[in-house]
Amino acid sequence: MRHFDLEMNDLKKRLVDMAEIVQEMIKISVDMIVKRDINLAKEVFNRERETNLTEIVVDDICLKLIALNQPVGTDLRFITSAMKINSDLERMGDEAVNICEIGDNLLKYPDLKPLIDIPKMSNAIISMVRDSICAFNTSDADLADTVLSKDDDVDELKRTIIKDLLEFMTNTSDKTMLIRAMDLMFIAKNLERLGDHATNIAEDVIFMVHGKDIRHLKSI
Amino acid sequence: MRHFDLEMNDLKKRLVDMAEIVQEMIKISVDMIVKRDINLAKEVFNRERETNLTEIVVDDICLKLIALNQPVGTDLRFITSAMKINSDLERMGDEAVNICEIGDNLLKYPDLKPLIDIPKMSNAIISMVRDSICAFNTSDADLADTVLSKDDDVDELKRTIIKDLLEFMTNTSDKTMLIRAMDLMFIAKNLERLGDHATNIAEDVIFMVHGKDIRHLKSI
Repeated sequence: MRHFDLEMNDLKKRLVDMAEIVQEMIKISVDMIVKRDINLAKEVFNRERETNLTEIVVDDICLKLIALNQPVGTDLRFITSAMKINSDLERMGDEAVNICEIGDNLLKYPDLKPLIDIPKMSNAIISMVRDSICAFNTSDADLADTVLSKDDDVDELKRTIIKDLLEFMTNTSDKTMLIRAMDLMFIAKNLERLGDHATNIAEDVIFMVHGKDIRHLKSI
Repeated sequence: MRHFDLEMNDLKKRLVDMAEIVQEMIKISVDMIVKRDINLAKEVFNRERETNLTEIVVDDICLKLIALNQPVGTDLRFITSAMKINSDLERMGDEAVNICEIGDNLLKYPDLKPLIDIPKMSNAIISMVRDSICAFNTSDADLADTVLSKDDDVDELKRTIIKDLLEFMTNTSDKTMLIRAMDLMFIAKNLERLGDHATNIAEDVIFMVHGKDIRHLKSI
């Protein structure tokens, strides 16, 4: 195998590993709220430092791969897509941290049962992340396409969560209940944003595989 | 001037123009709510189509610039930063559309006075976008630095808005009042996200100018 191919494989592996960590971060951040375990936040914060460092290393690898190998076509698209996916994964880590920060406030109060569909939404998001990065790993544009359609289901789930929480808020005059319901709404919004990032990754994969945009724009 | 330099200037100009449109989109989306003018949403939707197209064109230009000129160092960092800034600007356009979609619901009800500090927050965000893209245009890392510090002010403003709205929600049992207050909260969250994108652009500019991360990581 050429040195360049080895380095491209190394780049791919780093992003797959980073996505694995991001999936854990999402799971742990929601577990923190479900299990009411404030200590889980620390695990998310530690992993965030890891993803921040990985982002810098991956960007550096990409720039060097371009500068030293002057790739074109699919290889160049692979590297620039990797840079974008790298950014998305790092920002997903930030979102998991945001969820923990909201959780930190939420756990000051007694449980607001039920947690509505937040764990269900979180599982759906994790599966979108897994599929989008698997599509990247195997250059599978069809799998990436399925991620795009899942995003609609997640949006629907978010709408239901917000509707249920609003119903709950209407029927209480307790300020702390309102705060807790709002915190859960914000968590649903954070999860929605995580889904958007997974969608962005899937779109990058489709572009990487097909070079669709460039073909579409040749006449411009 | 070399052909390559002309193309680099053209790329820069496209991003500056795109950022101008994004600033208008943010302004119009908040104006829609302040002036209670549903027709303004159409202007935002039209501009979003424009930014979507620009994103594709700019990405294409960047890939061709790399493939045909094999740039290294500052030039390569400029182009890859341009690709990232391009992504951020397009997503900012999406956020303005999100604000209009919330506004569409909000305008079904009578005005919820006051609009708290949302117009103030919006102005602060627009100034962050302007400065971040001006920093990109003039390769001014110091100006980019000021954007990062402004983000803290915007976060503070968001916290005040949410606190004020929560106070408002506590003192009402009217469901439509709750919905309107929540919509305003979501708009504040959208504005916060817009600020995050401007911060990302500023960080890209600092990296582009100093190549800080690469230098920092040479020993890894």
